[in-house]
Amino acid sequence: MEKRFVYADNSATTPVYPEVLEAMMPAFGELYGNPSSLYSKGREAKRIVDASRERIAEVLGCKPTEFFFTSCGTESDNWAIKGAARANVSRGKHLVTTKIEHHAVLHTMRALEKEGFEVTYVSPDKDGIISPESIVAALREDTTLVAVMYANNEIGTIEPIREITEAVKAYDKRILVFTDAVQALGNVKINIHELGVDMLSLSGHKIHAPKGIGGLYIRTGARVHTFVDGGGQERSRRGGTENVAYIAGLAKAIELADKNLADVPRIEKMRDRLVKGIVEKIPYTRVNGTFEHRLAGNVNVAFEFIEGESMLLLLDRAGIASSTGSACSSNSLEPSHVLLSIGVPVEVAHGSLRLSLGRDNTEEDVDYILEVLPGIVQRLRDMSPIYPGK
Amino acid sequence: MEKRFVYADNSATTPVYPEVLEAMMPAFGELYGNPSSLYSKGREAKRIVDASRERIAEVLGCKPTEFFFTSCGTESDNWAIKGAARANVSRGKHLVTTKIEHHAVLHTMRALEKEGFEVTYVSPDKDGIISPESIVAALREDTTLVAVMYANNEIGTIEPIREITEAVKAYDKRILVFTDAVQALGNVKINIHELGVDMLSLSGHKIHAPKGIGGLYIRTGARVHTFVDGGGQERSRRGGTENVAYIAGLAKAIELADKNLADVPRIEKMRDRLVKGIVEKIPYTRVNGTFEHRLAGNVNVAFEFIEGESMLLLLDRAGIASSTGSACSSNSLEPSHVLLSIGVPVEVAHGSLRLSLGRDNTEEDVDYILEVLPGIVQRLRDMSPIYPGK
Repeated sequence: MEKRFVYADNSATTPVYPEVLEAMMPAFGELYGNPSSLYSKGREAKRIVDASRERIAEVLGCKPTEFFFTSCGTESDNWAIKGAARANVSRGKHLVTTKIEHHAVLHTMRALEKEGFEVTYVSPDKDGIISPESIVAALREDTTLVAVMYANNEIGTIEPIREITEAVKAYDKRILVFTDAVQALGNVKINIHELGVDMLSLSGHKIHAPKGIGGLYIRTGARVHTFVDGGGQERSRRGGTENVAYIAGLAKAIELADKNLADVPRIEKMRDRLVKGIVEKIPYTRVNGTFEHRLAGNVNVAFEFIEGESMLLLLDRAGIASSTGSACSSNSLEPSHVLLSIGVPVEVAHGSLRLSLGRDNTEEDVDYILEVLPGIVQRLRDMSPIYPGK
Repeated sequence: MEKRFVYADNSATTPVYPEVLEAMMPAFGELYGNPSSLYSKGREAKRIVDASRERIAEVLGCKPTEFFFTSCGTESDNWAIKGAARANVSRGKHLVTTKIEHHAVLHTMRALEKEGFEVTYVSPDKDGIISPESIVAALREDTTLVAVMYANNEIGTIEPIREITEAVKAYDKRILVFTDAVQALGNVKINIHELGVDMLSLSGHKIHAPKGIGGLYIRTGARVHTFVDGGGQERSRRGGTENVAYIAGLAKAIELADKNLADVPRIEKMRDRLVKGIVEKIPYTRVNGTFEHRLAGNVNVAFEFIEGESMLLLLDRAGIASSTGSACSSNSLEPSHVLLSIGVPVEVAHGSLRLSLGRDNTEEDVDYILEVLPGIVQRLRDMSPIYPGK
């Protein structure tokens, strides 16, 4: 099979779709007004922002006044968590989250711990699922916030957010529930009102909008402090001149992502064939995370006796873009905190590989990975002093 | 004279230059990798980010490791102020700023006051200048941060940042000095090391980069907490996947802004002719802010007996885009805090007009404003019951 380029890291980022770029271009041209300006050029820009917000709210099932534009999923996570924690200190300083959250959540929690908050980190089960019971068991009288991600970025597990929210609210309806939906968006039909959460964060660049735009849903009435203080933008809740171009792009991307949910079954089928092929062709392989509730394109496997980074570089040389854990911590030599939390031994976690397929991937891509990967794993194992197959 | 469109609100925002858009386009296309990814598509993206940072550091006179990308000037201001205040609480909780700062600074200070910090707001003189002496007079043993803007967004006054920094450091060299240089960039040659400040914020959209990108300089060794916690981006000091396209655009815009400083004298001449014409043609006019140290394109005048918003709308109808105060608070009916601080009476402040020229403006634009504006002011005054000229 001829060498080809296979982008199998759609959970890290995605290319900007032409329709999204097209939606952005007017704001890079004639529609350059500041949306806060009163003259017509400003009002034109404001109309783009307003229309984008309305479209997004419609797709996600919330009110337009409940959706705020941010610069990325990470900012949204910071806002939700720090904003909720600090706004409710009079009620308590205890927060609940999980061990498998993205660093945008975990490092934000660490920052709050230094401010005097106490955080409970709930463990997933061995399949990577967070049960409502395990969250409720962590709740206390002084708990003000629960943060559980909608879908995990490494192992792709989809968490029972609706059930978790119901269980938390049954315990104490004043506790705010936040979900980081960055990975779920575009893979799962999201209806915020049905989910029942108080806050939900999302990011554009995982769904073919550019890097540098995100959003945060905040339920009307939820007590959450402003994070970026400044001018009157976003109804005085997020300062900074609006990124009109990317806002238009995000609206288009969310619209497309919703439409493209129809492709999920096809991606799932490709993914299943890929996993099956890997397990059949490569011995000493461990598949991480449940396949019952999982992102359509996510494959996470660990190969014993090898080191993940070397594997990535050989895959890259063969034209395959993939990752070990999440891109955001790929410069770290620490084993994945997600894999460790579901009981993968450190030495096995070091040999993990995440392949994330998207709708631009083809069956030929799967064929190519299945042709190339086994040889690379074998080559690395042949160099390992502890590989028993030698 | 024929009706024309005159964009005279360059302090609010500016159109994206074609060279800037060109620098951004590759990241909207093939160069879509995540800069944190280890494979070649990720490394390509990282090279764009690195090269942009190096170019910016070179132009601004700092080390590349001291410059961080953010989503806007407002985020930069929040980071600098909250990050410095919170990182140095063990030394004190007193902060010093001025009454003429942007809301991104003032509202951030208000938020810190609610956290228990004490803030002194120093007044400018009647010309809008903040003297080093007035800052030093506000310093105390428990002062940890001084924040003074480089140039004011409403009246265009350029503050003596270097002298202020020297005076503060002479008092206590541990006190951090931060300057919001959002309006100064592109109007004044900025050399950060010569300025001596510990932190400096800037924004892209005031210098023909798009809305949604900013930067913060933090001197090596300055104690400043992270603001947006998350992944390993920006050397773990600002989480969130890098906005590769806008980062490339910002670097190009800063390079162009530096080159275009050569145009400043021409803009200044246009501005002076405009002010002279307004004062000659329109009685009961007050010119706000000194002309000795002032942004090249800034005109700020107050017309007695009229209401600013009506004037804006009539100017807009005539094709002239202008503002009363800053765009960021243009939806507010409050009179400008900047004008009040230099002693403009409330009723006069309500009739203020900011015209901000840029290098795309022409002498014909000035002619047109001078032709149209007097009639509009007269028309509004004719409707005023208190106008003595009736």
